[in-house]
Amino acid sequence: MSILIKNATIVTMNPERDILKGDLLIEKDRISRIGKLDRCAADMFIDARNQLLLPGFIQSHVHLCQVLFRGMADDLELLDWLQQRIWPLEASHDEESLYCSSLLGCAELLRGGTTSVIDMATVKHTESVFTAVKQAGIRYLGGKCLMDHGGGVPSALLDSPDQALHESLDLFQRWHNYDNGRIRYALCPRFAVSCSDNLLRQAAALARQYHIPVHTHASENRGEIELVERERGMRNVIYLDSLGLCNASLILAHCIHLDDDEIKILTASQTNIAHCPGSNLKLGSGIAPIPTLLRMGARVSLGADGAPCNNNLSMFMEMRLAALVQKPFHGPRSMPAQTVVETATLGGARAMGLEDEIGSLEEGKKADMILISLDGWHTRPRNAAGVYSQLVYQAQSSDVTAAIVDGRLLMKDGHLFSIDEEKTKNAAEASLQRVCRRAGLR
Amino acid sequence: MSILIKNATIVTMNPERDILKGDLLIEKDRISRIGKLDRCAADMFIDARNQLLLPGFIQSHVHLCQVLFRGMADDLELLDWLQQRIWPLEASHDEESLYCSSLLGCAELLRGGTTSVIDMATVKHTESVFTAVKQAGIRYLGGKCLMDHGGGVPSALLDSPDQALHESLDLFQRWHNYDNGRIRYALCPRFAVSCSDNLLRQAAALARQYHIPVHTHASENRGEIELVERERGMRNVIYLDSLGLCNASLILAHCIHLDDDEIKILTASQTNIAHCPGSNLKLGSGIAPIPTLLRMGARVSLGADGAPCNNNLSMFMEMRLAALVQKPFHGPRSMPAQTVVETATLGGARAMGLEDEIGSLEEGKKADMILISLDGWHTRPRNAAGVYSQLVYQAQSSDVTAAIVDGRLLMKDGHLFSIDEEKTKNAAEASLQRVCRRAGLR
Repeated sequence: MSILIKNATIVTMNPERDILKGDLLIEKDRISRIGKLDRCAADMFIDARNQLLLPGFIQSHVHLCQVLFRGMADDLELLDWLQQRIWPLEASHDEESLYCSSLLGCAELLRGGTTSVIDMATVKHTESVFTAVKQAGIRYLGGKCLMDHGGGVPSALLDSPDQALHESLDLFQRWHNYDNGRIRYALCPRFAVSCSDNLLRQAAALARQYHIPVHTHASENRGEIELVERERGMRNVIYLDSLGLCNASLILAHCIHLDDDEIKILTASQTNIAHCPGSNLKLGSGIAPIPTLLRMGARVSLGADGAPCNNNLSMFMEMRLAALVQKPFHGPRSMPAQTVVETATLGGARAMGLEDEIGSLEEGKKADMILISLDGWHTRPRNAAGVYSQLVYQAQSSDVTAAIVDGRLLMKDGHLFSIDEEKTKNAAEASLQRVCRRAGLR
Repeated sequence: MSILIKNATIVTMNPERDILKGDLLIEKDRISRIGKLDRCAADMFIDARNQLLLPGFIQSHVHLCQVLFRGMADDLELLDWLQQRIWPLEASHDEESLYCSSLLGCAELLRGGTTSVIDMATVKHTESVFTAVKQAGIRYLGGKCLMDHGGGVPSALLDSPDQALHESLDLFQRWHNYDNGRIRYALCPRFAVSCSDNLLRQAAALARQYHIPVHTHASENRGEIELVERERGMRNVIYLDSLGLCNASLILAHCIHLDDDEIKILTASQTNIAHCPGSNLKLGSGIAPIPTLLRMGARVSLGADGAPCNNNLSMFMEMRLAALVQKPFHGPRSMPAQTVVETATLGGARAMGLEDEIGSLEEGKKADMILISLDGWHTRPRNAAGVYSQLVYQAQSSDVTAAIVDGRLLMKDGHLFSIDEEKTKNAAEASLQRVCRRAGLR
């Protein structure tokens, strides 16, 4: 299968940050040529006149399992949000509801230009998440959520460490590098509050032994940080580092409340920070010190987090917030639009461990890309702003006209080819009713 | 002309905040009935199944004249933003470019569900703005910008006080209460930095004499506040109050940096505060103390401000930001979604002086309303969240399927009936080139 995209404004995100007017040829799963190309014999032709062609967005922190609970947990702080709403709901998932939640999330993500995610599933039925992402065609790194500890957790979400890691290893062996490497496995301890020291140590050992990335949360909420400090005798990031977890294979969501030592550890270890500005504001958690982290050389990427703490999975909203929230504190020049787009593409690619494969449009790289129309009223005049400003401050999910992952066209003009819209939406509504009844909520 | 809207979820915003499943009948410019209605002989019928019907959004602070400059002034603080970019560009407007800018803004606003605006035009060619809003059909309160003072202002933007007020009075007499009261006039001194004490005093006298609302800016930026204090010997709001301007007919944009005395003045005088969270973040201005102001009983409404400091005119973005930005500082329960929707509807109606006419859906009120589809992936599941949460945290401009002003259907399914899309977009691009050349920018 080959696809020729003609007449685009190509926002390459290559090392020179070239922005080219031209064409791009996809052959199989890779970008084979970029430039002025003759209308050669491609299987499919897309006219991208007046559209931006750019690497698909990479969200480095989402919870597909929570998409079904969108809007059901407003106005709560993190620990209340988990204990009163999210954990009871996650505990009430069945295989079908988790599949529906994940597929709904993939649909929203692809529709809005996100072609890759780093995800954390829930404790049970993780197979359903992999089945959904297999079908949807999105690029995926994630795995079963590890929990064996802490107050207010429904018993259905508590594994023994052995059980948790045994199931993880089994899922890893079946799904890691599935479908041409599109789906990969990550060990996902929820956070230090939900994991015994024993579980975290064993997870760290397993990660080292099998070279498995680790995806977890830290330092999102002051109450969480106090709890970890009380139980483990040190601050969150220092504790994770003491377990040998802080390195370039760790994706650490949030990182809002950090002291100087923790900032040094995160930057020196090249830990991937998943910045989630929408979620951080909505849960009242705080504003992560991203300009400082970037200045220190930290790896920063972006994610929408869960639908019930956002309540969207739009990279445009996260980019806009990532730019805006810092400016009252660090000045209007902080977080320029280009930097934000870098976190949304290159930063995410690095977090996935795929910086040589995705995150930019270059010959030989994987064909993960999106097209964005600048025809809306809100993107006019068309020739006034720079492209990075257009992406961060003007465009929205509905402007995305195509999404391609691994050379496969998954969305065109709002239509998803891998997901049946009516069936999925109806199944999601029915699943929600079942889960709510089981959880005793609403 | 009568329009029957059937099967909607009607978010009335009436005093009881009723949310009804039912129908609404528009006759001429008014809502004649709400309830379960037979399919009577209406001229037009809209099936609103699975859609929200709500009062059109009212933005209490915009600059239609700046829409053409979207994305041309990123990463600057207020005073630099004005002096380096906005004033030179405004000074270079011609009649046609100002008309195009205003029409482009009206199109974006109506497309995104904003049916009323409080606007500030620029100094010259104000007739063009009125011509555009007359054509577009949007409900409008605004007028010529008054400037006679201050450093770094292009001479084309400086009037004498006599000239400024004479032209204002002339525009007032020709446009105030135009088209069944849809278009109304406001005196628009830019801000204390740009107006001599003499001009402000004369404007205040004129406002009293003719009962003209006043629309201005204050206390947006620390530099601005210092300048006013240095020149006038008191803080911004105290100064405006000393001129007799602080009252229920004043719309005061921003109000970010206020001391206790100023908060007391604003609340006691029932001054209408136009909160512009997107603009306030983007210019690095700060975060307005809205929860405090609301607790004290202040009148708060919402606006996107100018396209070059936002860079959108979407009420959905402003609502989302209005909710989110307070939570890290005042807790996740601050600015609940319903409060935000109240500022976007009822608050705006009060700021326009039209609380008896618009801002809620009640029999006898003006027929200003919008329909919002909940069919997108990002609004699924449909039955999980409350409607206010759906509006603030999920919906986006592209979900608006109809906009009606004064009983006139202006937008349906993305198509605008009062504005020629191709012609307007092309004319805007050509106008921008002309203005930039004249301004010596880009």
